[in-house]
Amino acid sequence: MDHPTVDIRIARAGLLRMAEPPAPVVAAYAAKVGSIPAFKAIVCRTAPPSVLRATAARTAGRQPEDLYAQARHDLASADAIGATLLCPEDSSWPTAALTAFEMAAARGVTGSAPPIALYVLGNLPPNLPTAAVTLIGSRACSGYGERTAAEISGELAADGVVVVSGGAFGIDTTAHRAALAVDGRSVAVLACGIDRSYPVANTALLAAVRKQGAVVSEYPPGTTPARHRFLVRNRLLAALGAVTLVVEAGRRSGSLSTAAAAMHLGRVVMAVPGPVSSAMSAGCHLLIRDRAAILATCADDVLHELRGLDDPKLFAEQQFSVPIIGADARRPTDGLDSLSARIYDAIPARAAVTVQQVCESAGVTGAEALAILPVLHVHGLVERDGACWKLATRMAAAVNRT
Amino acid sequence: MDHPTVDIRIARAGLLRMAEPPAPVVAAYAAKVGSIPAFKAIVCRTAPPSVLRATAARTAGRQPEDLYAQARHDLASADAIGATLLCPEDSSWPTAALTAFEMAAARGVTGSAPPIALYVLGNLPPNLPTAAVTLIGSRACSGYGERTAAEISGELAADGVVVVSGGAFGIDTTAHRAALAVDGRSVAVLACGIDRSYPVANTALLAAVRKQGAVVSEYPPGTTPARHRFLVRNRLLAALGAVTLVVEAGRRSGSLSTAAAAMHLGRVVMAVPGPVSSAMSAGCHLLIRDRAAILATCADDVLHELRGLDDPKLFAEQQFSVPIIGADARRPTDGLDSLSARIYDAIPARAAVTVQQVCESAGVTGAEALAILPVLHVHGLVERDGACWKLATRMAAAVNRT
Repeated sequence: MDHPTVDIRIARAGLLRMAEPPAPVVAAYAAKVGSIPAFKAIVCRTAPPSVLRATAARTAGRQPEDLYAQARHDLASADAIGATLLCPEDSSWPTAALTAFEMAAARGVTGSAPPIALYVLGNLPPNLPTAAVTLIGSRACSGYGERTAAEISGELAADGVVVVSGGAFGIDTTAHRAALAVDGRSVAVLACGIDRSYPVANTALLAAVRKQGAVVSEYPPGTTPARHRFLVRNRLLAALGAVTLVVEAGRRSGSLSTAAAAMHLGRVVMAVPGPVSSAMSAGCHLLIRDRAAILATCADDVLHELRGLDDPKLFAEQQFSVPIIGADARRPTDGLDSLSARIYDAIPARAAVTVQQVCESAGVTGAEALAILPVLHVHGLVERDGACWKLATRMAAAVNRT
Repeated sequence: MDHPTVDIRIARAGLLRMAEPPAPVVAAYAAKVGSIPAFKAIVCRTAPPSVLRATAARTAGRQPEDLYAQARHDLASADAIGATLLCPEDSSWPTAALTAFEMAAARGVTGSAPPIALYVLGNLPPNLPTAAVTLIGSRACSGYGERTAAEISGELAADGVVVVSGGAFGIDTTAHRAALAVDGRSVAVLACGIDRSYPVANTALLAAVRKQGAVVSEYPPGTTPARHRFLVRNRLLAALGAVTLVVEAGRRSGSLSTAAAAMHLGRVVMAVPGPVSSAMSAGCHLLIRDRAAILATCADDVLHELRGLDDPKLFAEQQFSVPIIGADARRPTDGLDSLSARIYDAIPARAAVTVQQVCESAGVTGAEALAILPVLHVHGLVERDGACWKLATRMAAAVNRT
């Protein structure tokens, strides 16, 4: 067939439509051959089998004309509300923030990927991630959480820091409001199409965010919010800020997934403590207890960490190797990078061991073990046992069965 | 002169009277030559000059007869209220708990010492320190701190754990009350003579503690409470429990000195978080943020750490080398052991460095640096600066002057 004129924006809008994010295979293919050739090759079924498999569900039975038309339609839908499609080829693409995914991939981490492009309302502030703090927490936050989020977000924004958050009620809403109240900048990352105001009650807030910062989404216009999309979106929240601060989170809060994503990307994770009697602080306390997060009580604590990352060399040093558990991994341990796998393998099936024993067995330093073990814990692979570490019950059970 | 009959108890009561605790020189001399010969040698001025210097202030111008009489009088005063003098020669001496001082001394730590003997009302529970948790916090605690202390202390005591605390209002009082309320055991360590009820309002409480546990003091009967005695007493609080839990503490709370003492002795230090808006939790947050304490939200968190120490081998491993700043050190860095001194020296006068840089410069492991740096911080020698560490302002100023 003759290809119609395809520019980068049409190609990337099409690629975004062809595979549910995160789409590591498609993203890698586009990065390798270029977005326009990648799009054309998928449309014409000439792309490598792995790429065709990754896009099969959304291209099967559809004519090339349909796929081109859909891409153009998505761009038109975005244009209708004033949104643009920001592409990696653009100078304002947040390269420094999203390079973290490539760095993770280079460490052998699988299952995650940068966005193929981002629909943007407003203007994405420059100098991400070091100019930004990602502020997250529960929708059903307490009055204490709300006050604390407002205070910290307001002070950070007044200090020129970009506040990144989702678009949900609770901590997200409070963080944006407090930043906007001091004429600060904020960025809202959505888990639905950029044309969907979700929740509807936040329509005015998102309009205000757009004026003083940006609303962004990697989902094609019209995409409905869904639970899995919030989890996938969380990696972008984590990527855009150099520090991720969890203000309030229950033990099963989605904010813990953002914190885990931030760890995978080598970001600094911080958490605000609260009354031990508050279930809304239990997730924060878990993160701090397991040294997966640094305790933060105020904006100054956060600025302290953020300023420490201003030096690019220090920032690079901070990006230590941590594992990511790929969504497509067959076993929970499949996604581990080599260092993490060594540390995991150093923990015997039937006993608890000290950090020192882990270091000796795995041949790693104490700092490495202390950095990795909490991440393995967040992924449910290991557990603390007094001063020791042991396999998580489910992992030990699996080992003991074999 | 002819010595009157001197038994161990008279000798140690006399030694306790001759030097203000902690009396490392006197304690070491008594351990070396035996308590009776040590007492006699000091009385007759035949002890080594360092020992005579350490006891000069309280023996100068006093006849041997006076010194013997004073010791007997102290024992009689104790006996009058039903207290006994527990000595290292007794089988019920808490050897395992107080060996920590010898272990610290063996690491080159100076300035601290075990008690020469302990006046005891009631019965000191066996299996210290592993059977006990030291629970401390501010006198002027909040309602939140009081509730949390009561809940944790009650649950620990109900689980058979001995609760160790001071005799002050606030967290101390609450901890004892909650332990006694569930028929648990508690130990109160006083900073005054065992015959002084301080504060007076706690007379009934201390009487109850005595029935279900013990009230102890290393101070001779009649000794008045004084600020410096609370600081010295704190090392015994830290020594008697395998875990020291700070429930609430302001930034300048004396509880932080107990936490520092616990670190010196290789004890597990834990702290309860609270609302970031509460000044009463600021000290706890400081300890947790700087990883000098493990976050604890409930009795289970504490039991988890305590159980992990049940294994004597693990417990020994836990006793890593940490510095102690001797009260008699001329410069703040004089009391540092060699590992701590190496780490301190690795921090340049005019720049902040990463943990990795400290490790390289000092030739230590990450685990060692991560264990020691927070202790140096508690002592005001170093400060955190973003992701880095630097000399504390006052130390840097001193260096820059020279």
